[in-house]
Amino acid sequence: MNQNKNFTGQKLYNKAKGIIPGGTMLLSKRPEMFLPDLWPSYYSKAKGCEVWDLDNNKYLDCSIMGIGTNTLGYGHKEVDNAVIETVRNGNMSTLNCPEEVLLAEKLIELNPWADMVRFARTGGEANAIAIRIARAASGKNKVAICGYHGWHDWYLSVNLNDTGDDLSNHLLPGLDPKGVPSELKNSVIPFEYNDYEGLEKIVSENDIGVIKMEVIRNNEPIDNFLQKVRKLANDKNIVLIFDECTSGFRETYGGIHQKYQVFPDMAMYGKTLGNGYAITAVVGKREVMESAQKTFISSTFWTERIGPTAALKSLEIMEREKSWERITYLGNFMRRIWKETALKNNIEIEINGLIPVSTYSFKHKDNLKFKTYLSQEFLKKEFLASTNFYSSIAHNERILDDYSEVLEEIYFTIKECISNKKNIDDLLETSLCHTGFKRLN
Amino acid sequence: MNQNKNFTGQKLYNKAKGIIPGGTMLLSKRPEMFLPDLWPSYYSKAKGCEVWDLDNNKYLDCSIMGIGTNTLGYGHKEVDNAVIETVRNGNMSTLNCPEEVLLAEKLIELNPWADMVRFARTGGEANAIAIRIARAASGKNKVAICGYHGWHDWYLSVNLNDTGDDLSNHLLPGLDPKGVPSELKNSVIPFEYNDYEGLEKIVSENDIGVIKMEVIRNNEPIDNFLQKVRKLANDKNIVLIFDECTSGFRETYGGIHQKYQVFPDMAMYGKTLGNGYAITAVVGKREVMESAQKTFISSTFWTERIGPTAALKSLEIMEREKSWERITYLGNFMRRIWKETALKNNIEIEINGLIPVSTYSFKHKDNLKFKTYLSQEFLKKEFLASTNFYSSIAHNERILDDYSEVLEEIYFTIKECISNKKNIDDLLETSLCHTGFKRLN
Repeated sequence: MNQNKNFTGQKLYNKAKGIIPGGTMLLSKRPEMFLPDLWPSYYSKAKGCEVWDLDNNKYLDCSIMGIGTNTLGYGHKEVDNAVIETVRNGNMSTLNCPEEVLLAEKLIELNPWADMVRFARTGGEANAIAIRIARAASGKNKVAICGYHGWHDWYLSVNLNDTGDDLSNHLLPGLDPKGVPSELKNSVIPFEYNDYEGLEKIVSENDIGVIKMEVIRNNEPIDNFLQKVRKLANDKNIVLIFDECTSGFRETYGGIHQKYQVFPDMAMYGKTLGNGYAITAVVGKREVMESAQKTFISSTFWTERIGPTAALKSLEIMEREKSWERITYLGNFMRRIWKETALKNNIEIEINGLIPVSTYSFKHKDNLKFKTYLSQEFLKKEFLASTNFYSSIAHNERILDDYSEVLEEIYFTIKECISNKKNIDDLLETSLCHTGFKRLN
Repeated sequence: MNQNKNFTGQKLYNKAKGIIPGGTMLLSKRPEMFLPDLWPSYYSKAKGCEVWDLDNNKYLDCSIMGIGTNTLGYGHKEVDNAVIETVRNGNMSTLNCPEEVLLAEKLIELNPWADMVRFARTGGEANAIAIRIARAASGKNKVAICGYHGWHDWYLSVNLNDTGDDLSNHLLPGLDPKGVPSELKNSVIPFEYNDYEGLEKIVSENDIGVIKMEVIRNNEPIDNFLQKVRKLANDKNIVLIFDECTSGFRETYGGIHQKYQVFPDMAMYGKTLGNGYAITAVVGKREVMESAQKTFISSTFWTERIGPTAALKSLEIMEREKSWERITYLGNFMRRIWKETALKNNIEIEINGLIPVSTYSFKHKDNLKFKTYLSQEFLKKEFLASTNFYSSIAHNERILDDYSEVLEEIYFTIKECISNKKNIDDLLETSLCHTGFKRLN
């Protein structure tokens, strides 16, 4: 019984909710996003794709793998050894760490269109740095955006716009922009992916200096969308930024823009870059990046040494293992399992996202109930799972086959619920998982 | 000859300037802030208060000790061992790390006026989180500030105000707010330390919702300044935030506000908290912090485990060693050396800052020349030094005595320059050190 098994984790999480507003540091890691009251919540150890909770129960992680940070698996020996060596040699000093220069060189090698690099330690920071530099370079304030770009004022201000809750279509419904200065209203304007005419209209009606977008999230670009955006940016002297924090190193060695052969003026990398160690980067063309010298962007902890150490080693291993090929293969492998199992049980699902960061939903009014039930049953079989799969090279066919067997049973029951042989409400042992930003009690 | 000794570091820095706009991640660690063209620039190893450059030259760090991050010295064995254990157990997973809850509890214990905590990984982020939450809690945009609070838009917007380059008096002259949206103009209003009437006027003329300030930077509060600010905040229903990123754990175990027995509604800690590992915190009263639930504040790398691991162990060691007492003692020890050596040589200096973060200037038109010369000569004697001293428990009386001997020689020469027996220009082997934000070529 999970409720007993996960007692320690849930007890700690209940304490956390009383002293940490929102309970966790990342919305997507809230236990409620998976399985309210029954999720293990905390880990003592993580290795490969295995995670141990506070009661020493071991789970196979076939869910978000640290929200996509660990494409080489948790605790990759070579990366960890490099980090431990850095710890032993000193993580900080009055002088700078040479690793940041080596990492800058490496990222320029991976992005031949770019000349300069700045580092940060979180994706939100990298996004805010890029916007600052791009605004300084363009001399204009107005930004057009498409996708998810963090928690900072510049981005959340979209939800202050006269047009309303505009970020709903960019991943996160219900984001309340409380505390974001109202002065920023209408400074950032969202556009829909693949809607070139919509973007063109925004650009013609506003003095847009910057376009920031995810190269791809759910759907493939159609009708040369990316090429058209690039041309528009060129014609109108707009700084084009690709946010590769999520998409980088998933299907290519570097930005997914390589796949489409469309190149930005700036790009951000995060998540996978240091295989679970905090490091993010902004790369860009010299004429844009030099504007960083005209504005103050500086932080003490951007000089710590673990981040660039981990990134240098992770890049080396990714290149050697061709991790992007392997995780794409495993992502496709999992998609086939979902599709075939769904087909066999007459369940309709819709799969979205990049191949190695796949997610799906049940095309059924009880989608959320099925999703919660799925996490609940997988957990009993010692899998961390939801309706998604972020693949890593620590996963393999055998693990996915085992996963597939559990999925068969779960989908069979869901089929029985759809055909009214069983009642999903009777099967749920806890309340429904959350879907987005929501106040905790 | 330094130019030969530091060849590797300078060569790397010259490369860095071509691929990293601004050369380094932190303005204060730019080699030009110490000794242009001759500063070792990069380190291979740091331990205690010793730093090795890329050519394996060893220096005693009697300067900024990683800009004040390492009050327990570089590479403290117990902190490093805790971090290494965390690396071995996994730094990241889909589940959360329990250490963040333990650290939240510890910080609430240290700040009995506070109930809740959020973490970040840089001081700028912690400042931006605090402002977001405070604005959400107060329902007002306007902020009054005093001190240095990072690089984000909300803060730099001060320099867009109708009144001009207002941040000059808050540590950083010449900060160009390029790329900060002009819409933010006049949303943040600076006040001068100890000028209570000035603050009162700002509050009466503007709809101020938040006051953010450093408790103390250069001068002691006079005429119950802090008490008056607290009362004003109470009377006007303003959220009072103390930025303790620099002042925390220097003269007290926690915020320096303890010394004055004036308590804020929120406070930020950074720098010393993890002894060189990236971790920062926002602590606050429940009624304010709960507003974090009404706004989106979330980041992947705030869930990494090294930060809270390092902070928990650092706090334990600080408490055991009473590090704040030791570094205050050593700060006073150094101040005596400066004062006595200056007096003996008829040199006028002015000392500023918190005792364990002391800095001074020569009261002479050639201040910058003397400062550059001092770093140059100390470097020859294998000291990293400038006109400041950030003390750590790895320093001791013997090291400061050795420092004192070198200082004697340098001050003797400066005395000869002041009395025109020597010409300082003849003694300088490089260009003058920088004092603030300046474009690099």
